[in-house]
Amino acid sequence: MVKVVKFGGSSLANAEQFKKACAIINMEKERRFVVPSAPGKRSGSDTKVTDMLYHTYDMAEKGEDFKKNLREIKARYDEIIDGLGVDLSLDYEFKKIAEMFTAGAGRDYAASRGEYLNGRIMAAYLGREFIDAAEVIRFDDDGVFDAEKTKELMKQKLNGLDGAVVPGFYGAYADGRVKTFSRGGSDITGSIVAGSIRADVYENWTDVSGFMVADPRIIDEPESIDTITYRELRELAYMGASVLHEEAIFPVRREGIPINIRNTNKPDDKGTWIVESTAQKPKYTITGIAGKKGFCAVNIDKELMNSEIGFGRKVLQAFEDYGLSFEHMPSGIDTMTIFVHQDEFMDKEQQVVSAIHRLADPDTVEIESDIALIAVVGRGMKSTRGTAGRIFSALAHANVNVKMIDQGSSELNIIIGVANQDFETAIKAIYDIFVTVKL
Amino acid sequence: MVKVVKFGGSSLANAEQFKKACAIINMEKERRFVVPSAPGKRSGSDTKVTDMLYHTYDMAEKGEDFKKNLREIKARYDEIIDGLGVDLSLDYEFKKIAEMFTAGAGRDYAASRGEYLNGRIMAAYLGREFIDAAEVIRFDDDGVFDAEKTKELMKQKLNGLDGAVVPGFYGAYADGRVKTFSRGGSDITGSIVAGSIRADVYENWTDVSGFMVADPRIIDEPESIDTITYRELRELAYMGASVLHEEAIFPVRREGIPINIRNTNKPDDKGTWIVESTAQKPKYTITGIAGKKGFCAVNIDKELMNSEIGFGRKVLQAFEDYGLSFEHMPSGIDTMTIFVHQDEFMDKEQQVVSAIHRLADPDTVEIESDIALIAVVGRGMKSTRGTAGRIFSALAHANVNVKMIDQGSSELNIIIGVANQDFETAIKAIYDIFVTVKL
Repeated sequence: MVKVVKFGGSSLANAEQFKKACAIINMEKERRFVVPSAPGKRSGSDTKVTDMLYHTYDMAEKGEDFKKNLREIKARYDEIIDGLGVDLSLDYEFKKIAEMFTAGAGRDYAASRGEYLNGRIMAAYLGREFIDAAEVIRFDDDGVFDAEKTKELMKQKLNGLDGAVVPGFYGAYADGRVKTFSRGGSDITGSIVAGSIRADVYENWTDVSGFMVADPRIIDEPESIDTITYRELRELAYMGASVLHEEAIFPVRREGIPINIRNTNKPDDKGTWIVESTAQKPKYTITGIAGKKGFCAVNIDKELMNSEIGFGRKVLQAFEDYGLSFEHMPSGIDTMTIFVHQDEFMDKEQQVVSAIHRLADPDTVEIESDIALIAVVGRGMKSTRGTAGRIFSALAHANVNVKMIDQGSSELNIIIGVANQDFETAIKAIYDIFVTVKL
Repeated sequence: MVKVVKFGGSSLANAEQFKKACAIINMEKERRFVVPSAPGKRSGSDTKVTDMLYHTYDMAEKGEDFKKNLREIKARYDEIIDGLGVDLSLDYEFKKIAEMFTAGAGRDYAASRGEYLNGRIMAAYLGREFIDAAEVIRFDDDGVFDAEKTKELMKQKLNGLDGAVVPGFYGAYADGRVKTFSRGGSDITGSIVAGSIRADVYENWTDVSGFMVADPRIIDEPESIDTITYRELRELAYMGASVLHEEAIFPVRREGIPINIRNTNKPDDKGTWIVESTAQKPKYTITGIAGKKGFCAVNIDKELMNSEIGFGRKVLQAFEDYGLSFEHMPSGIDTMTIFVHQDEFMDKEQQVVSAIHRLADPDTVEIESDIALIAVVGRGMKSTRGTAGRIFSALAHANVNVKMIDQGSSELNIIIGVANQDFETAIKAIYDIFVTVKL
């Protein structure tokens, strides 16, 4: 049994958190490969080391004196080193970083040092080998992650090792230049390491005990989710959940490896299991609710639209021509509605409307703004009749007007459109009916 | 006040029905322009005159002796003439028809004689002018109805007349060759006459007292609809209602003329008013329910589909390339479902699936067949919260599994997908909750 364990920034923000993380690692010998993030915030007003690095590098690039800022960053690490009582000096590393900053090594290189240095400390403290991610995670010349080459490099470096520390967030081009993933990318690194060496489990340790059924900013102390499938998570993640980077799913999913989201501060909590498929019944009919405000509905009317071959395609062409993706496209007989992100659509609305007229010759086009979309997701919905009835009754009782409903044949989710101002009320009503009242 | 009154085939099937129709016409002097259909069935086992004409012409075209068949048709008309006691001989007309049949005048000409002759009888009986539709309804060289030219011709011929009879179902090209509308096209003629002369009302007299809330083959003696908007009707008509030809809506709608569906056998019934817009509240929250069996769902999965600009357009392109129109396209985050007519799709399914793969590179494509779509339509739904809740609760109680839900921003209808075998149960459940239980 091999586990890859990834620790987030808050789990490694100071020596105390570091000790917790390393105690967790040492608790099970299967936790062989560790992927650390950069030190996160020690308190609400603190700055993440990654942000400090970006800022310092920007100063260097402008030719400003960045030495004091770099010293502050070093102080963050030294505080951890001292607190852990580990015998390690980062003097040489910081000298090198200062040189590279002056030489214009790039923002990606700068940001990657957060994980790199934390990895060095962790390797020293755990007494495990340190593997620079630049040597095992490869991007091709276009900056696209090269899964094949990475797998090959990973196997070369990691095979035969009892354990190792691989810093998260970055990799390198073939020429060694560092390139980072998008923000939060240590999740991806953990997933790539787990997928490449075909680990049995990918443990992702963070500061919450897994996924919640609904957003805790809307629902007070929501229930947590025991087990969620990759597909369910995708349907929820897109709508705003932020526990796990969405691109972190694919590398492990491809290999059938489950992800276990755990809480460094509550290691006894079982957290959430993210799995390909499961016979386990969810605790409630729904697995989760997520949503997002700020959509526009573009309503298109045309008589006999449905019998006109190519009409829908032409309408979508108009959006594509202006670089817009659409969220949903519910349709009646003579009507069709396209939901798009309001912020992307705003600047282009008149051009898109005129393109729709030009390409598809509709009778009318109307735009409605400030719509929120809510996804109610659950593998349990397929086997439970009346889920939709309960959702819409709950919304009616809460006086929420439903502007759009969309449920495809997967029966995994129902998408509901409401006015922005009804967003929180709607989520509360749905949460209550399924979780609080357990209907 | 000017009314255009159209009578269907069952309202003019024999002398007795003819008298009822003409009594209705003479009851109000506003009923100035009359559009008759051809004689319909006198009983369940009878043949419509239009079908007799098609059959007889086919014989003529094959060089067979059609005289006996033509005599049978003449007998139908003579029976009406005798029953009405009107002084009219169709000998000359039938001689001309026989000549035209032999000369290969075409199936359109043949079929049009049903309305033409009925119009002649009606004009004689009412003592009104007869206007041959070939002189006032014009098709362009491509066989497309020419609204502009028709309006001009109508005005020339009808202006100044106190009343007239214009047979339904046909018109002519500029060179005088007859061309018919599609079957049931007398509804269209009535609408065109009403629209062209800007009538105040278009009365469409048939054998039912207007539209029913649901199909009487599924619901025993369903309630009738007092007032329905054009848009509501379109949403219902497409799904299978057959009282009025769907193309009959446009010519009057464009001029803001209401249609009143009336029952020749129950002239005191107020029938159904079809209007552009109305402040009248519908009797029930829903105006009507209609549906159709025999759809296929094509489920397409692709990771990160929603952020891929052009994905939906490419999928629809695959259907368009094979000449298929789609009904609905509900979508989740990584999934999208396209509903198509099963009979159209069956022969082409493998080509379409491979085109989807080629054009859009999805992860998986799955096909589900034997799905029925049900449209629950009502302008009252927008102002009544909880309609969706009641629908889906009712379906759950009836043990109907909902496979698809689709409601756009018009809030005028909700489209529901169920298994073919649940179709009748679903319609009954929805009818009961809104009409019987009046929830």
